[in-house]
Amino acid sequence: MDNKLMLMIPGPTPVPEKVLLAMAKHPMGHRSGDFSEIMAEVTQNLKWLHQTQNDVLVLTASGTGAMEAGIINFLSPGDRVLVGSNGKFGERWAEVTDAYGLQTERITAEWGKALDPEQFREKLEADTEKTIKAVIITHSETSTGVLNDLETINKYVKAHGEALIIVDSVTSLGATSVPIDEWGLDVVGSGSQKGYMIPPGLGFVAVSPKAWEAYKTAKLPRYYLDLGKYKKDAAKNTTPFTPPVNMFFALQVALQMMQKEGLENIFARHHRHTAATRAAIKALGLPLFAPDDAASPSITAVMPETVDAEKIRSVMKKRFDIVLAGGQDHLKGKIFRIGHLGFVCDRDILSALSSLEATLLELGHQFTPGAGITAAAKVISGL
Amino acid sequence: MDNKLMLMIPGPTPVPEKVLLAMAKHPMGHRSGDFSEIMAEVTQNLKWLHQTQNDVLVLTASGTGAMEAGIINFLSPGDRVLVGSNGKFGERWAEVTDAYGLQTERITAEWGKALDPEQFREKLEADTEKTIKAVIITHSETSTGVLNDLETINKYVKAHGEALIIVDSVTSLGATSVPIDEWGLDVVGSGSQKGYMIPPGLGFVAVSPKAWEAYKTAKLPRYYLDLGKYKKDAAKNTTPFTPPVNMFFALQVALQMMQKEGLENIFARHHRHTAATRAAIKALGLPLFAPDDAASPSITAVMPETVDAEKIRSVMKKRFDIVLAGGQDHLKGKIFRIGHLGFVCDRDILSALSSLEATLLELGHQFTPGAGITAAAKVISGL
Repeated sequence: MDNKLMLMIPGPTPVPEKVLLAMAKHPMGHRSGDFSEIMAEVTQNLKWLHQTQNDVLVLTASGTGAMEAGIINFLSPGDRVLVGSNGKFGERWAEVTDAYGLQTERITAEWGKALDPEQFREKLEADTEKTIKAVIITHSETSTGVLNDLETINKYVKAHGEALIIVDSVTSLGATSVPIDEWGLDVVGSGSQKGYMIPPGLGFVAVSPKAWEAYKTAKLPRYYLDLGKYKKDAAKNTTPFTPPVNMFFALQVALQMMQKEGLENIFARHHRHTAATRAAIKALGLPLFAPDDAASPSITAVMPETVDAEKIRSVMKKRFDIVLAGGQDHLKGKIFRIGHLGFVCDRDILSALSSLEATLLELGHQFTPGAGITAAAKVISGL
Repeated sequence: MDNKLMLMIPGPTPVPEKVLLAMAKHPMGHRSGDFSEIMAEVTQNLKWLHQTQNDVLVLTASGTGAMEAGIINFLSPGDRVLVGSNGKFGERWAEVTDAYGLQTERITAEWGKALDPEQFREKLEADTEKTIKAVIITHSETSTGVLNDLETINKYVKAHGEALIIVDSVTSLGATSVPIDEWGLDVVGSGSQKGYMIPPGLGFVAVSPKAWEAYKTAKLPRYYLDLGKYKKDAAKNTTPFTPPVNMFFALQVALQMMQKEGLENIFARHHRHTAATRAAIKALGLPLFAPDDAASPSITAVMPETVDAEKIRSVMKKRFDIVLAGGQDHLKGKIFRIGHLGFVCDRDILSALSSLEATLLELGHQFTPGAGITAAAKVISGL
């Protein structure tokens, strides 16, 4: 049905009406006092969302641009880095470090499995000469719905003492707790079309004092992505390059909404939706792609065996106007992914899962009708 | 007065209501057929606007990001480049080439004056060994309102034969003719908040086959700004990284409006507004910062002597809700700049100039009341 599209993909995520309307305001000059006021407010609220006193810088870029900035500002050619690669995005950061001539060591796990923290511990403990300059981890691997054990890996990085911890938090920030100051995370990158509840177009990078120390001697070339320029101008509530002012209008409203809901409530909502979705998928007899102990708070990937993943997506779209994501790279056609991230309420989860049940009925999958939605309803109601 | 702001700055420029409303639509998935349809349409229309059959790629970035991409994708460390520097933006591209370790030779002119094409001719003709790999020119220098003689400089680059011509067309594209195919311009960068009539957030880079040849051996590191990735995906009407889908909605509508108006009419309108503004400024006895034969089609800079430039801007804002731009860097406080770029009609020019007259009256500047607006009206009416 026209104009009824419901996004249940891991970005772009649904956007609240008041955010959309804020974005439709006429632009203002970005060198004005009015814009500086907005920037001051969103900077404060971004720190709140990131649970940090570190700088949180805003770039006109996708999450990939933000992550690249988070890598290249703190390293020099030939630096040794460990990159966790167990999905498309982890592998992407290894491609970035390769592209910049860093000595890249991939620590891999099968797509759909979590990275093994022990492999990081071994490498880091063996590095008595402190040649490892950074460890790059994708917290929630969007391509597989796996949540890597950032807390444990980070402990080993902290024990190493020298290496920076650089985190892709694109689909974990605003979905589960990423306590930057408490854990001592040096660089954390994210993107607007995820937990932030606004359309794509902004990237965010949080930077610790330790990372700024590394910045002073880091020699990889950069200009547009030079975070030092952003830090210097952010101190004056301005930006080095023209910011997308309408996206800032949207960000301002979305952060106000998030503050009103509260961090704990936001995290609880995402965890409830993950649990409800996974309970339903199990009750429907479909195999979950990620294990329970490494479930992303924002994406649930499913690898159906009796029905075609692409057929499920197709019927969900045509019959119920719900967009699910497919698999990426070698998982194309093999999995589908349900995004439950950002502006998603309990009703949305029931809508998606009941439509999924109807789709499975139509496609002839064998299951107890009502079992999925009942399992989800129990989780949602805390029964 | 609240909600009455009128932007007469060189970006962000005014945005049509239907573009704002398009942007307020709910996002769609960027890997959907619906999005590919939009991308196919805007790609065609961008080629029309650029007067080219070359690729025109769209980045989530400001104009600076687009220009950096336009430089670093086609060069290798140590390459010799000539950079025209006669304002903040020309100088910025030299900063970029410095940051990437290119052998940068600045060809400078005083801010407010045009680059001298002869200086390019001399350097290029002397380079019999063809060591110059690129010539980087800012067409309309936004910081001073000077239009550099791109056509002539480009002829010398063409006579050289080896060097690429890389053009900052941020405030000339969509304001005056930049005939990429006719002139053989290799790389042309621009940004959305200018002639495009949409808010900031998108950067554009047009790339010639000759530039793509250079790309094959170019070794400067890049990932997010790697234009090869954009070209490859654009062929499938998609993007390598999540695009700002709402900005694409805006771009689609704005390009449709531009097509309806027609390129010749758009250029004539901008030239008329430049001529009207300059005639008025002269009639008011204020010194124009750029000479008549190098007047930007989109920005008129004024260097008042009897009244304070910042006072003029302040009264224009407070009394008439019109935002003018100030000077940048060493011109801060010395000039003001009137943007007449993008969604600006004849009435807007009269509004701005009559408000400027009222401001000058209030500030005690000596002039014949009505002289400015009469001069502008005559130009606009073709008298």
